[in-house]
Amino acid sequence: MGMTMTQKILAKHAGLDYVKAGQLIEANLDLVLGNDITTPVAIKEFQKLGFDNVFDKKKVAIVPDHFAPNKDIKAAEQCKFIREFAYEKEIENFFDVGEMGIEHVIIPEKGLAVAGDLIIGADSHTCTYGALGAFSTGIGSTDMAAGMATGKCWFKVPQAIKFVLKNEPAKWVSGKDIILHIIGMIGVDGALYKSMEFCGEGVKHLSMDSRFTITNMAIEAGAKNGIFEVDEKTIEYMKEHATKEYTIYKADEDAEYDEVYEIDLSTLRPTVSFPSLPDNTKTIDEVGDVKIDQVVIGSCTNGRMDDLRVAANIMKGKRVAKGVRTIILPGSQKIYLQAMEEGLFKIFVEAGAIVSTPTCGPCLGGHMGILANKERAVSTTNRNFVGRMGHILSEVYLASPAVAAASAIAGKITDPETIMGGQ
Amino acid sequence: MGMTMTQKILAKHAGLDYVKAGQLIEANLDLVLGNDITTPVAIKEFQKLGFDNVFDKKKVAIVPDHFAPNKDIKAAEQCKFIREFAYEKEIENFFDVGEMGIEHVIIPEKGLAVAGDLIIGADSHTCTYGALGAFSTGIGSTDMAAGMATGKCWFKVPQAIKFVLKNEPAKWVSGKDIILHIIGMIGVDGALYKSMEFCGEGVKHLSMDSRFTITNMAIEAGAKNGIFEVDEKTIEYMKEHATKEYTIYKADEDAEYDEVYEIDLSTLRPTVSFPSLPDNTKTIDEVGDVKIDQVVIGSCTNGRMDDLRVAANIMKGKRVAKGVRTIILPGSQKIYLQAMEEGLFKIFVEAGAIVSTPTCGPCLGGHMGILANKERAVSTTNRNFVGRMGHILSEVYLASPAVAAASAIAGKITDPETIMGGQ
Repeated sequence: MGMTMTQKILAKHAGLDYVKAGQLIEANLDLVLGNDITTPVAIKEFQKLGFDNVFDKKKVAIVPDHFAPNKDIKAAEQCKFIREFAYEKEIENFFDVGEMGIEHVIIPEKGLAVAGDLIIGADSHTCTYGALGAFSTGIGSTDMAAGMATGKCWFKVPQAIKFVLKNEPAKWVSGKDIILHIIGMIGVDGALYKSMEFCGEGVKHLSMDSRFTITNMAIEAGAKNGIFEVDEKTIEYMKEHATKEYTIYKADEDAEYDEVYEIDLSTLRPTVSFPSLPDNTKTIDEVGDVKIDQVVIGSCTNGRMDDLRVAANIMKGKRVAKGVRTIILPGSQKIYLQAMEEGLFKIFVEAGAIVSTPTCGPCLGGHMGILANKERAVSTTNRNFVGRMGHILSEVYLASPAVAAASAIAGKITDPETIMGGQ
Repeated sequence: MGMTMTQKILAKHAGLDYVKAGQLIEANLDLVLGNDITTPVAIKEFQKLGFDNVFDKKKVAIVPDHFAPNKDIKAAEQCKFIREFAYEKEIENFFDVGEMGIEHVIIPEKGLAVAGDLIIGADSHTCTYGALGAFSTGIGSTDMAAGMATGKCWFKVPQAIKFVLKNEPAKWVSGKDIILHIIGMIGVDGALYKSMEFCGEGVKHLSMDSRFTITNMAIEAGAKNGIFEVDEKTIEYMKEHATKEYTIYKADEDAEYDEVYEIDLSTLRPTVSFPSLPDNTKTIDEVGDVKIDQVVIGSCTNGRMDDLRVAANIMKGKRVAKGVRTIILPGSQKIYLQAMEEGLFKIFVEAGAIVSTPTCGPCLGGHMGILANKERAVSTTNRNFVGRMGHILSEVYLASPAVAAASAIAGKITDPETIMGGQ
């Protein structure tokens, strides 16, 4: 029996020729990541375990992005604690306010994740880097502590589901619509502890930004990881960004998959996840009349250039509907600069939106756009759980940047085509 | 006995020919202002008093700026409450996220404050509009409620202190240094319940932005209000912004002043207020070695174009010191756009600073840059009270944007001249 892409990466990092689903292995780590919520807990564990130094100063990354810039005194104390640790241990990849961005946006951008890597991060959306052909997965703070100390982590080799993507996506359909469609199809536990392996000729029609969005949300189907086949676009991206060598792993012909789904991208429609689970999806044609109070465009899921460009294209020369607070959150300082240089911020601000400095902010109810009782948001983020963005009776509707931008203009959930009318 | 500028405005609005210091009068209001902290309390009072409508839909302004974009659920509920009130009462000047800015920046910018106006606001820095030759002062939420309902408010006519400004300010000396110098000289209760009346040929050397900074901080000397003589620059500003007629009031030759200070602006030095009162001032030559963790440039005191321009000029082509979180907060969406168009944001971000959407944010320990235990900030805001920006053992050093920018680059409180070296 052959191996999947995921299994091959795990085998290699465990020093084994072969692994099979269900096997327990100890593997070497290429990067251990934490944020301002999880790292303080990990540091305390690290200290309890009695370690003096991290296993490799280049292979630990710490990014304060959730409640930073400091939301309150508690957030300030957390950030101070991890900053002092990072300075003391001479961790090279500590990205503070001003150098920062959202962890899952900046790690690939700074070339710290490449094809073939094995990465763990104390954040559930660490699965993002699978877009580059890496194995990356979210772990708890204790695993982060042990990973920082030893450079190793235990894994159960996951079973796999194969998604064969076909054809070019329909108009206004991006990575977000594809992953929401898939989660709607298989459910929030549809890939529980499995790897989601994306391949097929349809992949070539997806930008890297769309791929990051898709793997980012693998966890929302319960997956251990999501991973894309490496192609020319991946290699081009790594040529531009990578700080280290990459290795391409291809699935064996006879690799085993629990299920294989063929998805014809040309038949998909813009898709929205209704409250309060990501698998509660409707196509844009089925959404009905849902008035909104807020729109959020950004996050580790959709805060990249593609996302900001499509939103700006839709909002250009228009005004957001009265009463719709529209909050744009670029994913990194680099994206901030580029989007600004391209004139996108001008479009947003002239449309009545605001542009924040990079932060996870409202996605997890952190700050910078929290919802009151019964308020509704369309958001390009990744979770719409009860109370996720604020009050327990507030509602989050997950959508693509195109749908979010169109909804901001209309004041209700809206098909981009309705706003753009064939443009 | 003649009247001061302040006394003349109060007399006019009370329908009297003459008032004298100490007299109690009821005066008509041109604008009643509130923010997201004070307005909810005022609305409850308004409802308790049994009023159905505000006295004039054009003469009430509500600006959610302190904990907005919503910092947390409580902030979201406060904003929702005032939003519903503003919509129900059809208040024309409700400035929500995206239309907003910091109240004392946008009220003049939107032409809602002009020379001769009588304005109350449930925020202590409402005294800002005196830069335009208006009487404006901070009041409590109960007065805001009564003001919204009746368009009137009771005042005790203040005594006055005259500040005769002479000559051109020395290099790197701006409005902030002038007002810090004055507060250092007369103390935080040096103008208690008095009007601070600024006049003299030195005024003509001060930009409107510098004047807004000076009157903004009149309250930090305990003053009822601060007011500038109207000159050509004031008139030019109003021509560009005003939405209503203005009236110029000049002090009578024989107006009575408790004290008269002559201030030679050419002799002043960049000035810093050390913790934990604004009158604890030192000149930049006396500051010694004060290492810092954060720099904040913005607020109702120093978030205007002059402020951002001088900071950008100093930071251009340089990097902020490692470990100094440098947070830029433009005062309004209009300033945001203009500063961005002028390339200032590019300079800030390339220097390693971040640019936030307009908010009061860290100034009052709200959000977007709160300090941890023993952390120190240089800030262009207006108060450095114990715990103002976060932890009770954190410290705030008040300074001009020039000093703040220079300090960000050096990592400690620094004379702009040291960074710019004669440029």
